[in-house]
Amino acid sequence: MAIEIEHKFLLANDDWRQWVSSSVTYKQGYLSSQATSSIRVRISNDKAWLNIKSATIGTQRHEYEYEIPLADANEILDTLCNKPLIEKTRHFVNNNGNTWEIDEFYGDNQGLIVAEIELSATAQVFEKPDWIGAEVTHDRRYYNNNLAVQPYSAWSTD
Amino acid sequence: MAIEIEHKFLLANDDWRQWVSSSVTYKQGYLSSQATSSIRVRISNDKAWLNIKSATIGTQRHEYEYEIPLADANEILDTLCNKPLIEKTRHFVNNNGNTWEIDEFYGDNQGLIVAEIELSATAQVFEKPDWIGAEVTHDRRYYNNNLAVQPYSAWSTD
Repeated sequence: MAIEIEHKFLLANDDWRQWVSSSVTYKQGYLSSQATSSIRVRISNDKAWLNIKSATIGTQRHEYEYEIPLADANEILDTLCNKPLIEKTRHFVNNNGNTWEIDEFYGDNQGLIVAEIELSATAQVFEKPDWIGAEVTHDRRYYNNNLAVQPYSAWSTD
Repeated sequence: MAIEIEHKFLLANDDWRQWVSSSVTYKQGYLSSQATSSIRVRISNDKAWLNIKSATIGTQRHEYEYEIPLADANEILDTLCNKPLIEKTRHFVNNNGNTWEIDEFYGDNQGLIVAEIELSATAQVFEKPDWIGAEVTHDRRYYNNNLAVQPYSAWSTD
């Protein structure tokens, strides 16, 4: 079990793209997403994982992750997970000793880009690069489990 | 992935106890139990498993099972699973080439005993011993995920 402390931001502009050190593509879905926990199946680079997260909204939550067979993951995504599935590329950007993970979404969430930073302690200070925009850590709409139910393309534009 | 074909019965009397070949104790809970699937954590003999079942009511459903660390399972049962947890002893009884699994419940489901037989094909014929009572395969109340929400002790006695 690990405790995650995450901060989530929108992007102010595209300047981050020049600093990308690596990228990885994810296809994932949620078996369940309820008051106490969410359960995710994720495929990346022909490997698959089952992930359980406690659903504490905010900066801290518990997480458990187990590798599962790729064939099982494909079946579970197709037959048991909520739709739409989440498809995204995660770009890694190093900035002053911190690693930013920038998720660029496709499919029903096309157009959405979100940057996350994971800290080892709630009090840890970090620098916000100029390309970081508004913080959305506490906005449930940006949680991937919610994007699998109410995707970005379905949000009202008012 | 395996397809399960199960039939579930109440017990007519206690005669089955003389034929028990082995017994095992389970402590389990549900992370989720919804329209499409249920997700169970089970501890038995100091080992733990995460199990995903499609929620088809009736005799057939898909099932996936993965071993997970015992310490994780204890944490997940304590902090993330629905309460009450399910505690039961499963007794195995061989009868005319078939194995019956007889679940004797404790805790909030004390007093409930249910017999299950698992078949390899829907058309497979099986003999019902005299100690087998009414069939409850299609009665959702007897599903373990429902016993974790509406336990036997809370059922109306009318």
